[in-house]
Amino acid sequence: LNGKHKPDRPSASLNPEVERSYKRFKKEIPPAEEFVRKIREGDKAWLGRAITLIESQSPADREVAQAVIKALLPYAGNSFRIGITGVPGVGKSSFIDRLGTHYIRRGHKVAVLAVDPSSSVHKGSLLGDKTRMKSLLEEENSFIRPSPSGDFLGGVARKTREAIILAEAAGYDRILVETVGVGQSEVYVRHITDMLVLLKLPAAGDELQGMKRGIMEMADLILINKADGALKEEAERAARTFRNALQLFTYRPAGEAGVMAVSSFSDEDVSRVLEHLENFYQKLKSDGSLEALRNEQLKFWFDETLQEYWQNLLRSNENLQREKEKLYRLVVERKISPFDAAEQLWNKILRQLKNS
Amino acid sequence: LNGKHKPDRPSASLNPEVERSYKRFKKEIPPAEEFVRKIREGDKAWLGRAITLIESQSPADREVAQAVIKALLPYAGNSFRIGITGVPGVGKSSFIDRLGTHYIRRGHKVAVLAVDPSSSVHKGSLLGDKTRMKSLLEEENSFIRPSPSGDFLGGVARKTREAIILAEAAGYDRILVETVGVGQSEVYVRHITDMLVLLKLPAAGDELQGMKRGIMEMADLILINKADGALKEEAERAARTFRNALQLFTYRPAGEAGVMAVSSFSDEDVSRVLEHLENFYQKLKSDGSLEALRNEQLKFWFDETLQEYWQNLLRSNENLQREKEKLYRLVVERKISPFDAAEQLWNKILRQLKNS
Repeated sequence: LNGKHKPDRPSASLNPEVERSYKRFKKEIPPAEEFVRKIREGDKAWLGRAITLIESQSPADREVAQAVIKALLPYAGNSFRIGITGVPGVGKSSFIDRLGTHYIRRGHKVAVLAVDPSSSVHKGSLLGDKTRMKSLLEEENSFIRPSPSGDFLGGVARKTREAIILAEAAGYDRILVETVGVGQSEVYVRHITDMLVLLKLPAAGDELQGMKRGIMEMADLILINKADGALKEEAERAARTFRNALQLFTYRPAGEAGVMAVSSFSDEDVSRVLEHLENFYQKLKSDGSLEALRNEQLKFWFDETLQEYWQNLLRSNENLQREKEKLYRLVVERKISPFDAAEQLWNKILRQLKNS
Repeated sequence: LNGKHKPDRPSASLNPEVERSYKRFKKEIPPAEEFVRKIREGDKAWLGRAITLIESQSPADREVAQAVIKALLPYAGNSFRIGITGVPGVGKSSFIDRLGTHYIRRGHKVAVLAVDPSSSVHKGSLLGDKTRMKSLLEEENSFIRPSPSGDFLGGVARKTREAIILAEAAGYDRILVETVGVGQSEVYVRHITDMLVLLKLPAAGDELQGMKRGIMEMADLILINKADGALKEEAERAARTFRNALQLFTYRPAGEAGVMAVSSFSDEDVSRVLEHLENFYQKLKSDGSLEALRNEQLKFWFDETLQEYWQNLLRSNENLQREKEKLYRLVVERKISPFDAAEQLWNKILRQLKNS
């Protein structure tokens, strides 16, 4: 590996230590070996820097990143990966701040990766307000990092998965992946974590914020957040209603549909959630389903990425794109069946590939 | 068009008239013009025969079928297409028998197409017991036909869509598409009809019969069936519970989540359902959403079929299939990332296509 490149488009970091180290390093990239050693020592600055390389658009940067990941792979996998989702305003950051702090008190090292595949729309909604993770930011055993965004699902997934690997190799054993529950992000986070936690507000109104159908069925745990003060009773009522509804919709045995009314400001509530999470994790590990789940995820991303290459072939080829639009129009005008149209386009694709 | 071919693998028909005409015709295929004329006259035997051509594996048969469809396309589209789904045993056939009879009493012509993309598993579960549609079978203005099966989703969809076009051109203005709510069939029926009706039993137990998650969210109307005798009260209680749950899960305005407890043996209940269906249809038509929905479905089948060509390319090529399995194994053994594996396979696909 012949290191020493200028990094390209580094992403912002919230951690002042990482910022400083970034400025120190930005003129040249050290060799992969140094990254590996520093990350294994748990050096946060180097961990942040490596994630920046992962996110870089420059092939040279990515080359170093890949060497680092490959070397660190044997040290990865030993964490509980928890996806946390919910619409903006539901209190994800405060909740993560409290949960993360509880985990650290129990001797864990906590990494928070916030991903937002649709960030062009929701820019700044994730980790935007540093004050909401104040306690966690001050902890020695925490690492907080907004992760890459983009509209190419597989691309974001890949980068976040790689960031998880690096964080695990640096000794973080509880990885919290924060994302907004709109657009494609919950599909994404579901296939990258071991457990999906959905935060909801006691009152309805999620539909106004673009929450997708089906997300409640995907969630392993639903937290009715802000169950404090005047909202406490309403949140508990909502939790009961959701618990019943969830049983009907997901066919889970009674009692297994995890729904809790919680306040991020109640240590007792946060502890209860933590216990629930840890029980879930122990159960996953003990019966082999964690291994099965992660294998399934690997296959999912293999298929998904292949799918994206194929989709991208269509999108990136102007001829094919024009032909597709033309055929679409004919289909909608009922001049050609969608099945004939697809066959025509397919034959054109094959011809183009053959002659390219 | 140069007709006169032997039809290949005709599918069974329940209608004795169709059976007879099939036997009469089976030695040669009349030209497309004759099909068109007879179908426009509402001749059931010729309608049945044309559907047999659609289902045929022989290119010659399909050629005639395509000419017939093309000629009849201008007369199609003027029906209300209703998908009816539910697990085996929920009482779909009896319900369709009653609903269809009510429609005929009101002056409609009713075609029932039963499709079952997973028929290898559930063979005989659809329209298997003719006695359950006895009243409807005796009606002059009914046409009942089990439709093609197969595990290639787009293929079944195409054939059923074509059967719908022919039935519409023959004057049928209420098309009931019956399917079991397991496997892929509900995805299929959802994208081929204007409205999806889900039949459920008052007691739980759907999960035992392979009903898929998410189907309740897709349904436009849920009927808790067999609300008669001892089960009446239980069915009504279930309807209330589902109505509340549905509102939570699909974010529909209160009152719009259609859930009714019904008995197929109560004329009053069947009439109530019919009114609900007709209101739904009128609403769809009046605000332009029927047109929008059908355009969306055309685009869906265009994309879906293209997707199946692409999937089939992988499946049908032994080299690529072997390469894919090899890469899968390496991914699961954590020797290569799913993203790298996909890239390798993609490049191999491109090379193969270029040299084929």
